[in-house]
Amino acid sequence: MTNFSVSDRLLAGVIAAVLIHICTLSPVAGQSADLKKDAIAIDSIYDEALVNGRCYSWLERLCLDVGHRLSGSKNAEKAVTWTKSVLDTMQLDSVWLQPCMVPHWERGASEEVRLYLKGTKPAVLQALALGGSVATPAGGIRAEVVEVRSWEALDSLGEKGLRGKIVFYNRPMDPTKIRTFEAYGGCVDQRVTGASRAAKYGAVAVLVRSMNLKIDDFPHTGSVIYDSAYTRIPAAAISTKAAETLSAAIKEQIKPEVSVRMSCQTLPDAPSYNVIGEIRGSEYPGRFITMGGHLDSWDVGHGAHDDGAGIVQCMDALRLLQRIGYKPRNTIRFVAFMNEENGLRGGKEYAREAIRKGETHVFAIESDAGGFTPRALTFESADPAFDDKFQQIRGWETVFESYGIRINKGGSGADVSPLRPTHAVLSGYSPDSQRYFDFHHTADDTFDKVHRRELELGAATIAGIVYLMDRYMR
Amino acid sequence: MTNFSVSDRLLAGVIAAVLIHICTLSPVAGQSADLKKDAIAIDSIYDEALVNGRCYSWLERLCLDVGHRLSGSKNAEKAVTWTKSVLDTMQLDSVWLQPCMVPHWERGASEEVRLYLKGTKPAVLQALALGGSVATPAGGIRAEVVEVRSWEALDSLGEKGLRGKIVFYNRPMDPTKIRTFEAYGGCVDQRVTGASRAAKYGAVAVLVRSMNLKIDDFPHTGSVIYDSAYTRIPAAAISTKAAETLSAAIKEQIKPEVSVRMSCQTLPDAPSYNVIGEIRGSEYPGRFITMGGHLDSWDVGHGAHDDGAGIVQCMDALRLLQRIGYKPRNTIRFVAFMNEENGLRGGKEYAREAIRKGETHVFAIESDAGGFTPRALTFESADPAFDDKFQQIRGWETVFESYGIRINKGGSGADVSPLRPTHAVLSGYSPDSQRYFDFHHTADDTFDKVHRRELELGAATIAGIVYLMDRYMR
Repeated sequence: MTNFSVSDRLLAGVIAAVLIHICTLSPVAGQSADLKKDAIAIDSIYDEALVNGRCYSWLERLCLDVGHRLSGSKNAEKAVTWTKSVLDTMQLDSVWLQPCMVPHWERGASEEVRLYLKGTKPAVLQALALGGSVATPAGGIRAEVVEVRSWEALDSLGEKGLRGKIVFYNRPMDPTKIRTFEAYGGCVDQRVTGASRAAKYGAVAVLVRSMNLKIDDFPHTGSVIYDSAYTRIPAAAISTKAAETLSAAIKEQIKPEVSVRMSCQTLPDAPSYNVIGEIRGSEYPGRFITMGGHLDSWDVGHGAHDDGAGIVQCMDALRLLQRIGYKPRNTIRFVAFMNEENGLRGGKEYAREAIRKGETHVFAIESDAGGFTPRALTFESADPAFDDKFQQIRGWETVFESYGIRINKGGSGADVSPLRPTHAVLSGYSPDSQRYFDFHHTADDTFDKVHRRELELGAATIAGIVYLMDRYMR
Repeated sequence: MTNFSVSDRLLAGVIAAVLIHICTLSPVAGQSADLKKDAIAIDSIYDEALVNGRCYSWLERLCLDVGHRLSGSKNAEKAVTWTKSVLDTMQLDSVWLQPCMVPHWERGASEEVRLYLKGTKPAVLQALALGGSVATPAGGIRAEVVEVRSWEALDSLGEKGLRGKIVFYNRPMDPTKIRTFEAYGGCVDQRVTGASRAAKYGAVAVLVRSMNLKIDDFPHTGSVIYDSAYTRIPAAAISTKAAETLSAAIKEQIKPEVSVRMSCQTLPDAPSYNVIGEIRGSEYPGRFITMGGHLDSWDVGHGAHDDGAGIVQCMDALRLLQRIGYKPRNTIRFVAFMNEENGLRGGKEYAREAIRKGETHVFAIESDAGGFTPRALTFESADPAFDDKFQQIRGWETVFESYGIRINKGGSGADVSPLRPTHAVLSGYSPDSQRYFDFHHTADDTFDKVHRRELELGAATIAGIVYLMDRYMR
């Protein structure tokens, strides 16, 4: 794109801005004269985020100084300390650690998957043990590998076809889903439940195709959950490239073998913490608005998009509200939840404590879908009056439209979901999803994959909706 | 994000999909029963793009086999040949080259900008000559450098402050603009007109801060346009990092000097071509719908986002319409326009020829804003009946909503803009703009910066709007 139409573009831009201004404010003014002022306040939040945003430099520190931070690890401890130290500089009314016990799984030093083809040297398949997997015997497991793409195919192979074998789950993400989370939802069952469903038929290990829409060599880890009715067998993810290689080998050759060697282990539960900071409400200190992400990550890469981004965005959202001089009516909390990835202990503990203390939660929002350009905010609630509340929230869409953000009904986030019984309105921050599964749970989820402006726009969006919920939601 | 809420997410996804389905189809059905079928057809276009899209592999070939391709260069010739060779495989009704003469500017081997600070060795400032710039004398120019951030500042320095000096334009892009093209529009005048406005006061060269929202070391080139009333003086862009360095040096030190050495030259105009392929209309072969991008690029990087992306998306859009078995009513053309970057000769020639032949152009769309996730389609026209037409187009927004795409009034594209006098409806493909100016006109605008799915979604979006315009626009 060149400069020849600059004046046209500029003019078009000015006209567009004026139109947006008119469109944004007119219908809103009909609903509430105040919303005009609110639109201006929210604009100043975005300006501050884009000019003086802290989230990006905070993310750099979290990624480069702490790094990945699986629950129970030394790095998770460091992350707790780091997060509290940042909150301590923010002149909040209160900062504290909320204890919770977390699972403690370690990958171990030895991890290797090899493919044995007749007449060639064994080839390494890029692999990561799934979180929670048991280890193999020290010498590993070597067996024939059988590919399945559906539960029906697994069941029809049955014990006869699977006993003593390694099952390779190779159902890919559906590329036709525009929202990639739907494609993820359509195949993650293989990773979560595949080990036990194969063990039921006597399989000795499972390999799972990574949840990735690209063909590349990064294996994507994530949790396996064992069904206690069956033997716990080792489970690993292999990269999509390795999956293609393995699938081709199975097609070309009768009974190729694979070896799997992993030394991971589950240790006793470890003490850890949610990290919480709050600004006390000026009118309703006993009513709460919570915003957060999860501080833990998988044990590879930096956990930059998942979910360092959510942590620093919500922390910056709190700062943005301070910076525009906003005095919240309700108490506003930032919560860095611990252990979303393999237990949700932090999210559950936060809700348990809130319910025990009789805290009224008006609203809780989670950012845990990556640090990409904001596209939508989604809302849900167990409140029988939610439809009316959602109509009210939808009335604010005109404010968010100039930032390209829609207001939809939809899911919130794993960590805030235990607050559902309180009838709080729950929300999920929903950025563009096209790139998320390039990085999710991989060694490639590093700081350099996060775009500064995209991250900052998210912080401003979260601050904006918290501002409106605080002012108007009863 | 983890797996613990998979079933919830899945359920939410299904519910959302059903809701979208209802929302998409109901209001539309009221307008036209056919639009239900259209929504299904367009869905099959997206499916085909995401499963079997060609645009990404075509872009790889254009970037890696041809590379950058400034008008008049050998590479531009190669790009013409390559594009025609792809169109020749597509079983179109007609493929041809439309001749046009284009400017021929060459960068030359020697290009260096240095900063001289007292007591230290001269430091290299990362720089690129602006396209169309004159050369310096072989030994370069060395002079005191003066920073200005506004035209008012330039004018108030005047001849007294500027004669014999090098002017450094350092007005940055405004980070608070959500749409980065607005921020670009707010400072590109320095690059386009800065040389002559400084020459008016006797300056000997100009340096321009790159049009970039990041601080990095990639200079961004682009056109300078000289005013014939003043001496043509050499003009170069320096990286934003170099701009910060230079600005700091000017603040810290009295009268720092800069040297500029460039050996670029303007050669006689060269013959070149628009590359055109068309599918003849089954009902109205004499009515035309045009979609395209520009085949030329700046002479650094791959011209991947600018505008290889637009070329391969529109070429793939033509193929997508073929693949779903669509028989267009009007004649549909793909046009690879030549010379958008420094002359617009291709776009002008295409319109001149269309007007000369009395071709009725119903619609023309351009993709020249990068290969990022689609966000909107914008429409404009000189047709006095455009408001009615736009209402009709807006009625289709429900179809595009499930892909996250808005329908707005707004600018189209430089290459299609010469068709304005024909009263055609003109449209611009408008993807997410946050990353575009990271790469625009730089050595970093390379194939690996383009995301496959984002690119493919754009091809489908263009095919979708062309499909609807072809069916319904009269």
